Amino acid sequence: MSGKFIVVEGLEGAGKSSVIGLVVDILKQQGIACITTREPGGTPMAEAIRECVKHPWEERVAEKTELMLMYAARLQLLENVIKPALADGVWVVGDRHDLSSQAYQGGGRGIDAALMRTLSDITLDGFKPDLTLYLDVDPQVGLNRARGRGELDRIELSGLAFFERTRARYLQLAEADSTIRVIDAMQEMEAVHRQVQAQVREFAS
Amino acid sequence: MSGKFIVVEGLEGAGKSSVIGLVVDILKQQGIACITTREPGGTPMAEAIRECVKHPWEERVAEKTELMLMYAARLQLLENVIKPALADGVWVVGDRHDLSSQAYQGGGRGIDAALMRTLSDITLDGFKPDLTLYLDVDPQVGLNRARGRGELDRIELSGLAFFERTRARYLQLAEADSTIRVIDAMQEMEAVHRQVQAQVREFAS
Repeated sequence: MSGKFIVVEGLEGAGKSSVIGLVVDILKQQGIACITTREPGGTPMAEAIRECVKHPWEERVAEKTELMLMYAARLQLLENVIKPALADGVWVVGDRHDLSSQAYQGGGRGIDAALMRTLSDITLDGFKPDLTLYLDVDPQVGLNRARGRGELDRIELSGLAFFERTRARYLQLAEADSTIRVIDAMQEMEAVHRQVQAQVREFAS
Repeated sequence: MSGKFIVVEGLEGAGKSSVIGLVVDILKQQGIACITTREPGGTPMAEAIRECVKHPWEERVAEKTELMLMYAARLQLLENVIKPALADGVWVVGDRHDLSSQAYQGGGRGIDAALMRTLSDITLDGFKPDLTLYLDVDPQVGLNRARGRGELDRIELSGLAFFERTRARYLQLAEADSTIRVIDAMQEMEAVHRQVQAQVREFAS
């Protein structure tokens, strides 16, 4: 039996890391073997590509350059880690996947939706997660939390309006896809975790 | 008056470097300001992407990963170096451009031609060189020359059949595009240089 791919999505400061830890715990309690991934990154080559994306370059970074790099890294992770794990019956819990590109580059940066779909189709050939948990926060709340953790990277410095557009695209895409569940991440952490538990237990049972 | 973009293309060991030097000399003799570029690379970010492409990774590198990285680097160079130079009336002499992807990834690796065109259109938006000099060599001749220079990189280690397919695609594309001139680079270097001189003087006059 092949494994399942669960992705945790959301803006900076939405609380992805603690939710990923929780999902892993729930799966382990149910005796399900799993690994975690993060995007961009997760293989030596994909991590090198991540460095290219995150580095604060002095030159202007073209929007489509960022997009191509995201897909290059995603494909390495998909082919070398995610697909082999799923084929072995191991579940994969991902910190971001394709929905991040759709939301950040498509929504935030305003790259044409048809172009985004084409690039996603070319790269992923129809592969998609079995379940996505989208942790919804107001960008101001999220960025304040993220700032508390230290320096912000090039993408995180893109400004509030960018994150408003990104959030709007996340919500719009979630509405159109029943495998994406929206979780209000502005609640107390306990309430967020209870909702995550309910979703994952229902899905994994 | 805007500058012109001349690209020198060919397999490893075709003699691109010496031809590029010659083209620059000819332009300077005619009082034309020019810069040289190389692909992948040519901006700090594009050079970092070049490192990702050329590195001998232990993991399998998906064909489309390589392709995305090539286009990411190309776009940085195009937007930050080539287009600004041309707009200033400066000519650009390029060591490789889009034709390399069409030949190596399309021909050599056998990536679907429609997909190659789509990706090129998405990234370059119809931009193309004014003149391309394709230096045609038998792969065995070229690889023997390249080996003489030291270690071969990941792409150069792809084997003879790969380079045969790449050469065939170069020739096929040159036949269909009058801005691509084929130069027999298996002749004595003097004869190659005479042909290059004739082509560039005709074009630049």
